[in-house]
Amino acid sequence: MPAREFAIGFDADDTLWRNEDLFATMHARFGALLARYHDAATVERELLATELRNLGPYGYGVKSFTLSAIETAIHLSARQISADEIQHLLDLGRAMLDHPVELLDGAAETLAALSAAGAHRLLLITKGDLRDQQSKLARSGLAAHFHHVEILADKHGPAYADLLRRHAILPENFLMVGNSLKSDILPVLALGGAGAHVPYHLLWAHERTAETPRAADRFFELKSLRDLPAVVAEWGAATQKKINRSRKP
Amino acid sequence: MPAREFAIGFDADDTLWRNEDLFATMHARFGALLARYHDAATVERELLATELRNLGPYGYGVKSFTLSAIETAIHLSARQISADEIQHLLDLGRAMLDHPVELLDGAAETLAALSAAGAHRLLLITKGDLRDQQSKLARSGLAAHFHHVEILADKHGPAYADLLRRHAILPENFLMVGNSLKSDILPVLALGGAGAHVPYHLLWAHERTAETPRAADRFFELKSLRDLPAVVAEWGAATQKKINRSRKP
Repeated sequence: MPAREFAIGFDADDTLWRNEDLFATMHARFGALLARYHDAATVERELLATELRNLGPYGYGVKSFTLSAIETAIHLSARQISADEIQHLLDLGRAMLDHPVELLDGAAETLAALSAAGAHRLLLITKGDLRDQQSKLARSGLAAHFHHVEILADKHGPAYADLLRRHAILPENFLMVGNSLKSDILPVLALGGAGAHVPYHLLWAHERTAETPRAADRFFELKSLRDLPAVVAEWGAATQKKINRSRKP
Repeated sequence: MPAREFAIGFDADDTLWRNEDLFATMHARFGALLARYHDAATVERELLATELRNLGPYGYGVKSFTLSAIETAIHLSARQISADEIQHLLDLGRAMLDHPVELLDGAAETLAALSAAGAHRLLLITKGDLRDQQSKLARSGLAAHFHHVEILADKHGPAYADLLRRHAILPENFLMVGNSLKSDILPVLALGGAGAHVPYHLLWAHERTAETPRAADRFFELKSLRDLPAVVAEWGAATQKKINRSRKP
């Protein structure tokens, strides 16, 4: 079986570059703007509830967040919020889109090493807003390492299954790397693929899950992306062993 | 050369289903909302200018339009617009996302016929907002006819070249069908592909172009999608003739 049939998928936000910090900062500024109407906990709870309620029609990303923030501000201020304050929310959203891309520790070196080794197809698999994700990838300096870029509306089992089918990748030859057990790891393990979880210090409430991965030989917990090449080697050896075993009479 | 190597790409908005009518309605309602501040022509000009200025950071689609409408309303009202009126703009945006998908004449029949014939790979190639376009496709009832769905951040030459490369389609075996000369036809003709232009009665100012297609044997002007099967047959015969000619010593 040629080595090129093995593929590694990378999540982007909070796996390759910072993202949730920006949203956390925006939530704090939003709380400050609404402080004369409600306490911080109420504002935070209402904003999150609006974001989740709007995921269906709006999807993920900064534009959706900005629209949800405006809606929440109008609601929590009993329609007293001023045009100036709404303009401030628009400006905050624009600042998020324009914010420099800050790579996480080890992202550039690890991708460069795996790309130079050439043993795996490297895919960027992210969700959210097309324009914003493409812009961040372009500014990240990492684009040249990826054979394919997939920006999905959502990252669930059927979306991964469809993606692997389109790229003619067998699930057992696929390793997904990401910070979200819910979006990056569990759906891939369920398909028979492998997952490398690199936690980030912040996780959006919507990405939390009580489920724990149950696939001892296909699930890897990493402290940093710098540990990934060793995990890839371990996974490759284990997969090769399984292939050899299945070929025995 | 097997027939399956030929592919037909379809634009979606205003090619398969109505879209610009909705934006036109929204522009009219926006004008009515701002009528006490400025005349209709000024409001229309400012809204379009804001939309175009924001295409870079926001990209295409309803969420981008809604954010631009709010920004324009704040600006044109000298920050006097009320929270109630901003909420009205949010509601108009949501109504656009929730609006039923209205297929254009001949779309369902033509796609069903081409899909049943099985002689071409059928691709949906649209731009704009991931979530909204996927939702419209799901509600259109047309999804099963397409082998692949590509939602691009923009439809220009490099985006088409990348798409054809990823799908291993030669430009000369590719026909793109759409209502926008600028986004659907001219970039594909420039790559050496074919284009079938089906004009729609409305065209967004940003999609207008003074350039006219110059590729007599690869450009087709259609009155309705119902004319497409005949054009596909003509294009197929012409392409086959070229292939045969190129094989002669």
